[in-house]
Amino acid sequence: MEMLCDKIKEEGTVLSDTVLKVDTFLNHQVDPELMQQIGKEFAARFQEANITKILTIESSGIAPAIMAGLYLGVPVVFARKRKSLTLTEHLFTATVRSFTKGETNDISVSKDFVSSEDTLLIIDDFLAEGQALLGLLDIAAQGGAEVAGAGIVIEKGFQQGGRIIRERGVRVESLARIASLENGTVQFARGVLS
Amino acid sequence: MEMLCDKIKEEGTVLSDTVLKVDTFLNHQVDPELMQQIGKEFAARFQEANITKILTIESSGIAPAIMAGLYLGVPVVFARKRKSLTLTEHLFTATVRSFTKGETNDISVSKDFVSSEDTLLIIDDFLAEGQALLGLLDIAAQGGAEVAGAGIVIEKGFQQGGRIIRERGVRVESLARIASLENGTVQFARGVLS
Repeated sequence: MEMLCDKIKEEGTVLSDTVLKVDTFLNHQVDPELMQQIGKEFAARFQEANITKILTIESSGIAPAIMAGLYLGVPVVFARKRKSLTLTEHLFTATVRSFTKGETNDISVSKDFVSSEDTLLIIDDFLAEGQALLGLLDIAAQGGAEVAGAGIVIEKGFQQGGRIIRERGVRVESLARIASLENGTVQFARGVLS
Repeated sequence: MEMLCDKIKEEGTVLSDTVLKVDTFLNHQVDPELMQQIGKEFAARFQEANITKILTIESSGIAPAIMAGLYLGVPVVFARKRKSLTLTEHLFTATVRSFTKGETNDISVSKDFVSSEDTLLIIDDFLAEGQALLGLLDIAAQGGAEVAGAGIVIEKGFQQGGRIIRERGVRVESLARIASLENGTVQFARGVLS
């Protein structure tokens, strides 16, 4: 998605060989017009998938998810993150480790909002090691929901998450795929994923 | 805003005389079309205010804020919540107590994203005791930004937040104002606020 790649090139900051900071338009400050275009693109890619609901995770997944939900005409559910959950009654929960932040969170979704009648599109801002996405897939499975695929804003193709998720048979659509952040430079991946 | 009041009447659950649960369309599951209408309404009310940026707080403020940002054509910044901040360099921070959850959080915004060149519209999902809004006003002041006003999705008019914030001279626009949750029933406030 050209508009997104341009934005990454213009405003992204490479903090290390694995960390890309995009907090001027995605993670802290958010560009609503870019989110609108991202939402339209996800909606177009999953138009035929009979999505009934979007599942995402707070906080940076919410903006792209809400725009995708608008153009697909379906509600959005965001999983909540907590250091640890004490009350888990009536919740689907999963444990998610963040490699970047070096912390582990429990994520949860009310049992009211994911069911066997749902075909879910999972949306998140980043796909790196795939832990958040695995947690969301786990929650979808607990609810008996079908997963039509995952829509990712930025995939770090040099980390293993994309491979792990695709090997599980999940369709992953990433709007920008980064091949490398080495030498302080963003290199985008081209061509079709194996 | 009729569409919002109808939704509250249909789907809101009164948990106590002070707590209204709206997690089918605002706080956990989110209705993108309703958020779009809310965003348009905020944009219309603050169209003449020369807003340069929207300031909100994760997570439930993000969806209405991103839609308002879309229709005002300005970026959205969401403050992050943490139990306690250890690294505060390059951050504006404030401490916010939640009466509902009985917990205290530090909220923060990068110094990159609020400045004396900004005229802010602050958006949040609820206004009850006003603590989150006071924290956001504090952050705006630290950055030297002007605040054109606050756009609130649901104001609990029987709690003191609205009065406190208005007494500080801040324009508050609430799309639904609740006068009472007594006897398990939502009573909306009518007429002009003093």
